[in-house]
Amino acid sequence: VDGPIPAIDRDARSPIGLQLVEGLRRRILDGVLRPGDTVPSTRALASELGVSRSAVVAAYEQLAGEGYLDMRQGAPTRVAALILAGGPSAEGLDDGRRDETGASSARVTAGGGAGGVARAAGAGGPANAAPAPPRIDLLPGRPSTARIDTRSWRAAWRHAAALDIPSESPPPFGVPRLRAEIADHLRLARGVACAPEDVVVTAGTAEALALVASALALLVGGALRVAVEHPGYPSARRTIERRGATTIPVAVDGDGIDVEVLRRMPRPPHAVMVTPSHQYPLGGRLPVATRLELLGWARSARAVVIEDDYDSEFRHLGPPLPALASLDSDRVVLVGSFSKVLTPWLRLGYLVLPADPALRDAIAAIRADEPSPVPGTAQEAAAALLASGAVRRHIAVTRREYAHRRRLVLAALDGLPNAPLSGLDGGLHAVLELPDAATAAVVVDRLAAEGVAVASLAEYSAVPGDDGAGLVFGYAGPNDTLLAEGLERIRSAVAAAMRPREAQPTA
Amino acid sequence: VDGPIPAIDRDARSPIGLQLVEGLRRRILDGVLRPGDTVPSTRALASELGVSRSAVVAAYEQLAGEGYLDMRQGAPTRVAALILAGGPSAEGLDDGRRDETGASSARVTAGGGAGGVARAAGAGGPANAAPAPPRIDLLPGRPSTARIDTRSWRAAWRHAAALDIPSESPPPFGVPRLRAEIADHLRLARGVACAPEDVVVTAGTAEALALVASALALLVGGALRVAVEHPGYPSARRTIERRGATTIPVAVDGDGIDVEVLRRMPRPPHAVMVTPSHQYPLGGRLPVATRLELLGWARSARAVVIEDDYDSEFRHLGPPLPALASLDSDRVVLVGSFSKVLTPWLRLGYLVLPADPALRDAIAAIRADEPSPVPGTAQEAAAALLASGAVRRHIAVTRREYAHRRRLVLAALDGLPNAPLSGLDGGLHAVLELPDAATAAVVVDRLAAEGVAVASLAEYSAVPGDDGAGLVFGYAGPNDTLLAEGLERIRSAVAAAMRPREAQPTA
Repeated sequence: VDGPIPAIDRDARSPIGLQLVEGLRRRILDGVLRPGDTVPSTRALASELGVSRSAVVAAYEQLAGEGYLDMRQGAPTRVAALILAGGPSAEGLDDGRRDETGASSARVTAGGGAGGVARAAGAGGPANAAPAPPRIDLLPGRPSTARIDTRSWRAAWRHAAALDIPSESPPPFGVPRLRAEIADHLRLARGVACAPEDVVVTAGTAEALALVASALALLVGGALRVAVEHPGYPSARRTIERRGATTIPVAVDGDGIDVEVLRRMPRPPHAVMVTPSHQYPLGGRLPVATRLELLGWARSARAVVIEDDYDSEFRHLGPPLPALASLDSDRVVLVGSFSKVLTPWLRLGYLVLPADPALRDAIAAIRADEPSPVPGTAQEAAAALLASGAVRRHIAVTRREYAHRRRLVLAALDGLPNAPLSGLDGGLHAVLELPDAATAAVVVDRLAAEGVAVASLAEYSAVPGDDGAGLVFGYAGPNDTLLAEGLERIRSAVAAAMRPREAQPTA
Repeated sequence: VDGPIPAIDRDARSPIGLQLVEGLRRRILDGVLRPGDTVPSTRALASELGVSRSAVVAAYEQLAGEGYLDMRQGAPTRVAALILAGGPSAEGLDDGRRDETGASSARVTAGGGAGGVARAAGAGGPANAAPAPPRIDLLPGRPSTARIDTRSWRAAWRHAAALDIPSESPPPFGVPRLRAEIADHLRLARGVACAPEDVVVTAGTAEALALVASALALLVGGALRVAVEHPGYPSARRTIERRGATTIPVAVDGDGIDVEVLRRMPRPPHAVMVTPSHQYPLGGRLPVATRLELLGWARSARAVVIEDDYDSEFRHLGPPLPALASLDSDRVVLVGSFSKVLTPWLRLGYLVLPADPALRDAIAAIRADEPSPVPGTAQEAAAALLASGAVRRHIAVTRREYAHRRRLVLAALDGLPNAPLSGLDGGLHAVLELPDAATAAVVVDRLAAEGVAVASLAEYSAVPGDDGAGLVFGYAGPNDTLLAEGLERIRSAVAAAMRPREAQPTA
């Protein structure tokens, strides 16, 4: 790297736009360009390099989408305040999360596999739960669908239903038009530059994870080992365990997965499953430097990184950071869905495959036996909905809505004594830590009795006996009134449970 | 059993209609009532038993749907000519299948499991195959969609798209209205009396089989062993192997699976997967007596019977036989789909669960982690389509259409020397046996070069080294002209391959 402005090689096989993006990204990551530095105007840089101005604009927009540049109307474009390893965000953190969560001392524990499968039988989860649904559902994962543009929604299905009805299963990797629309969506909403050919349409995140796990099991040919976050998404863990994987819990800290633990593992796993943009459930965001360390480890261990990007479209505080998939196209499988962006009712998700053809071939072999579960008509409807711009507009609308709801959460629950609130930088859920498991259980039970459904942090533990204590709750689904009531009930339940024991009435 | 007319116990907890059905069915199976016997008129029986005439009509209709009674307009209702163990059908067989297929001498071979998974990588199947699609696609499994009532189809999707958009995944076992419509469909089209609560909506047969296998693996808690038909559906085998099952091939004869082989197994499998109404691929139909033997074995071995009822709506010759699920509601899981009845494009299938709650709970636990892959909107659309009667009408239309196509197949290929045609009693595909594997390979390759896609019987082998020799081809998908050309090309290719070697031109 010779200077702040990348040189362009017109004879190279790589397109000029890509050279620009990669050159600038490299200079930012290497510290040649630093947070806050202004970059040349698009006009000046285009002139200096002798390229078209539109090429420079496109490169800047991509880097802004990836979180490297900060472009604002009427202000010079600057290098964004990236959150680097361990250090505080340039914007600061208002939620006290950083040093208080993920306090687990167990770093690596083996043998998640069989135990996990055995646990599954008793873990019915919400679908199996109470006969009467809760009055206020604050379980994490529910978006708001009240403002979906129903006119575009209906038009999209009408269009899809009017197409000829083929006499075969949908294409194994999805209907071409939908794959192209998803690639566009990822470029615009997430800064991930991928081709339609890299996209596999799935029936949501669970089916995507199951497909990747099955494909890896096929490639490994024996005992597949996958490192998972602790605490982490228990359903995701069990889903891959059901495909024959043994999961190996790796503790997360306030930022996300601890790469040092992976590095020290004498026998590296075949894959690691991470939620870098908004650790589930604790809410940490993996700094760029740690992302690069994780990818470096994956390269040396020849491991696949499964990036579960489940809610990164909603970022409330701090810039979005580049997806792992945009930093390494060889080892990362990006998994995402429209469950948060639209609704889980649609059962629509996707994988973005790495360049390496092995995984692609394995997935093709599985899809040949087990055809894509996504109805062709639903795929065509989703493509039409994306093409109409309705999804993009809905994200913009709900982003404001969820930012407002998040403020309600902060107003109601921030600063409770001994109950730090965290995980609110992005996404649709928050964590309220509590001093111990007994208190958390009392609070969850009391809330359930009052018709307010929340999850217990303990449910996310991947290491039996090392359970966190607290509540995990979503704030996107209910309307403002119900949310306000639910938050008030959380506040009261926590206050009651934390009251000194002697002050409580005895039975 | 005291006489030909069942006694009714008004104090019993079992409804009168059910007592009637069960009493009559038992008398037929026990030979008290014999094929060809007339049964009393509904009026006479109602009067004799002191029950309503409509109860008797309903009971007769159910038994007719199950294949026990033969009801014809203007003629007395008779006991149907059931195909009993090994004996020839009352209608006779016009295809020479019975003694010439399934000539395998290997009866049981262990260790399908790991080998099957390893095979999958190379078995891309049609989805992976040639870049240019075949001009005439005679691969088995494609229905005709040309005559789907597009007006009802569009109306159904329009209706579903106009409903409120929930912010959660569809219910784990499916949208209630669709479960009720599927239960109705099964009663009318298949004589299976089940409640909506017994139905699980799935994304086609593969997802249904995967779900059952995962649930059984959860229940068994260790190494799940599943007996499968040999030859049989290779994708189904690999699908359940990917859920951790070891498959144990059991040879089929002209009728279907050989129950004696199951009986002699020193360590019975946890489950057996069968295609009793139209063995895939050979086309046998399991006689009622053998069905009862299979169920008797399953009871004593405490095994689950997975009944893959993939094309039983289309029966061309001989009465439909009762589904295993209608003979034993405790041990049988019925698996079916709308892939043949409508189109695989819809990705819609179902399970009918046995009364035993264990499997139900295990499936609920899995669905809690991995939500139903079937979009809520697609489920509502399918329910509306079924409710409109369009599916029932479409089955009637295509039944005539396929019967006609079947006659084209018989006209073109029946009676070829050393190449018996079989499997044509029902469904949408046929088998043309050939003297040896080399001949079959030559024919398949020549047809592929001419743009005609057919499957090789060898692909269905579950026992390496014990491959059948022949072609498996579908006749429902292409129109009459293309089908006629495809059949003529099969005839020529077979004739050329069977010509004495000396008569062939040498290179």
